[in-house]
Amino acid sequence: MIIKPTLLLDTQKCKTNIAKMYAKASRHNVVLRPHFKTHQSLEIGQWFKDVGVSKITVSSLEMADYFADEWNDITVAFPINILEIDTINKLAEKITLNILIESKETVSFLNNNLKNKVNFLIKINIGNNRAGLLPSNIQQIEDIIKASETSDMLEFIGFLGHAGHTYKCKDKASVIETHNKAKHNIVSLKEKFKAQYPNIIASYGDTPSCSIAEDFSGIDEIRPGNYVFYDLMQYQIGACNIEDIAVAMACPIVAIHKDINEMVIYGGGIHFSKDQLKDAQLRTIYGRIAQKKDKTWGNLIPNMYVKGLSQEHGVIKVPEPKIDNYNIGDTLIILPVHSCMTANLMKSYLTSEDTNIKMFNPSN
Amino acid sequence: MIIKPTLLLDTQKCKTNIAKMYAKASRHNVVLRPHFKTHQSLEIGQWFKDVGVSKITVSSLEMADYFADEWNDITVAFPINILEIDTINKLAEKITLNILIESKETVSFLNNNLKNKVNFLIKINIGNNRAGLLPSNIQQIEDIIKASETSDMLEFIGFLGHAGHTYKCKDKASVIETHNKAKHNIVSLKEKFKAQYPNIIASYGDTPSCSIAEDFSGIDEIRPGNYVFYDLMQYQIGACNIEDIAVAMACPIVAIHKDINEMVIYGGGIHFSKDQLKDAQLRTIYGRIAQKKDKTWGNLIPNMYVKGLSQEHGVIKVPEPKIDNYNIGDTLIILPVHSCMTANLMKSYLTSEDTNIKMFNPSN
Repeated sequence: MIIKPTLLLDTQKCKTNIAKMYAKASRHNVVLRPHFKTHQSLEIGQWFKDVGVSKITVSSLEMADYFADEWNDITVAFPINILEIDTINKLAEKITLNILIESKETVSFLNNNLKNKVNFLIKINIGNNRAGLLPSNIQQIEDIIKASETSDMLEFIGFLGHAGHTYKCKDKASVIETHNKAKHNIVSLKEKFKAQYPNIIASYGDTPSCSIAEDFSGIDEIRPGNYVFYDLMQYQIGACNIEDIAVAMACPIVAIHKDINEMVIYGGGIHFSKDQLKDAQLRTIYGRIAQKKDKTWGNLIPNMYVKGLSQEHGVIKVPEPKIDNYNIGDTLIILPVHSCMTANLMKSYLTSEDTNIKMFNPSN
Repeated sequence: MIIKPTLLLDTQKCKTNIAKMYAKASRHNVVLRPHFKTHQSLEIGQWFKDVGVSKITVSSLEMADYFADEWNDITVAFPINILEIDTINKLAEKITLNILIESKETVSFLNNNLKNKVNFLIKINIGNNRAGLLPSNIQQIEDIIKASETSDMLEFIGFLGHAGHTYKCKDKASVIETHNKAKHNIVSLKEKFKAQYPNIIASYGDTPSCSIAEDFSGIDEIRPGNYVFYDLMQYQIGACNIEDIAVAMACPIVAIHKDINEMVIYGGGIHFSKDQLKDAQLRTIYGRIAQKKDKTWGNLIPNMYVKGLSQEHGVIKVPEPKIDNYNIGDTLIILPVHSCMTANLMKSYLTSEDTNIKMFNPSN
């Protein structure tokens, strides 16, 4: 029985998402190296192995360390943190470790401190403007590659870009436009260096592009992650349908305010995170309520949504005639705005088969 | 040595904050029942005992259960979740448990299911419009009290309000105006019921009001919590000075982009939370950088701030001439926007005396 905020996982929806992306990657002849920062679970990772995935992406060295128990080819898609050199050396002894570099300084440090061979990709800013070198910055790119050649420990294997700016798109057409530009940026860079380094790859990916686009020419590897669960943000972008969303929060109702058509749930920022979106009516939304359906859920309830979150409270806006349907002690099923952040906070899943799945938990 | 995102705690600043609020409560002759949802730590709780605090507030029954090892008078300042009746009964056997009620339905359920005596306060909406009954809703308030009198297990002890809308204030004058109205709401309600229930209290509190206001007439108890650490949000409201902020994140620099005067740190939404504020120049700020100073930190560095956060990345805007001062592998000291949410994510503190302090961790 659910008595407090609980993260539900619809196993069937999740496995369908996993299978569909693998089939799409195969159809386009690109390697799927899914990002595991969304689900952060060895057990869910097994479902990817079941369809044929053999290489993964993570967002930190400590997450790589967790997954290294069962995966032997891991890319840490984050500018490498040289302060964690001990973890890098430990991992590189055990698995094929691929890291991101974007400066000569990092190369020199690693040349002096690596004890085992590490592959590296140069992180390229393909339009997201968060991390990476601009593709026009050929001099710096060449300097990094040359510096790495003075050591036997660093192997240049290609370029990596993340088109995270697709998250700002509001429809499929703009995702495709963003994707085409971002893809061009990384593919043309790879082409430029290919004569000299024939084995290099272009690693690309984000869930909106990989879900919506159908042109991956020149790309060798994609790294979407969120698609394992999807969420309301992806739905708004056009990357999924509501019925593809594979996780939801179950939260008890603790107060009902009929005078203002609102309810309070036990479920706040420490459960959902405070990611939000604006819906078509420009309302700020922290989650949408779905209909209950056996051990899982059905359609969204129109005009019912999470209008605010504080540390442990959520405030639900309820359409007027509906509020009489609810009682204190009922649980609501709420689809999250950003499933990566919600899963990271909840640290475990209750599946539609009533089993518990644990996640990576660095505070343990 | 700090190698990854770490939450620093300046013990001296923290103890000063704890002592100052206790002295203020004593001066105003109100009981201080601090909210422990900010620090969530038995060890830091001891510092409150040291100055004379004997009663506390928490935000969930599971947090009450954690603190019940060392505290025997705990208020759960959240509309009681009847689904957790087993935890309520277990706690009520061990400590003086005070809960919040705002409906007759909850009273009936508790009348039928409580095994031990529990005190309750009626949650009043004193202007924050999140939870609670309006103070004008006398009929519903009377119904709740009467319903509780049919059982020996529920004891009505007063009214509780939270002026959380002070968080929307941008200066001290508006905090005082908000405080005066909110205080009037709860005090006048208590006065109305005092003839019939002479021992009831008015419990009030939020960090901005309790830090800034000097009129607590009619209030019996205050429950501020954030003041143990303060943060940039409290600074912007006018509730603290920068030098009162007792926690900061230490985050390694992983990339430096001199062309755009930005740096990338290891430290993202899973460390800081995504709480943000708009500064005087209307820039969106997720954290401010402070000067390093031995084991703690000094003033803010002007015009240097966290401009964006994703799951593990933070992007730092750096004033142009300063960027040459930084190297990959340096750590930055960053004051958080909302210390409650940051502490909740980080789950432990590294003190200025180089000790580790653990926190409540429900996922363990």
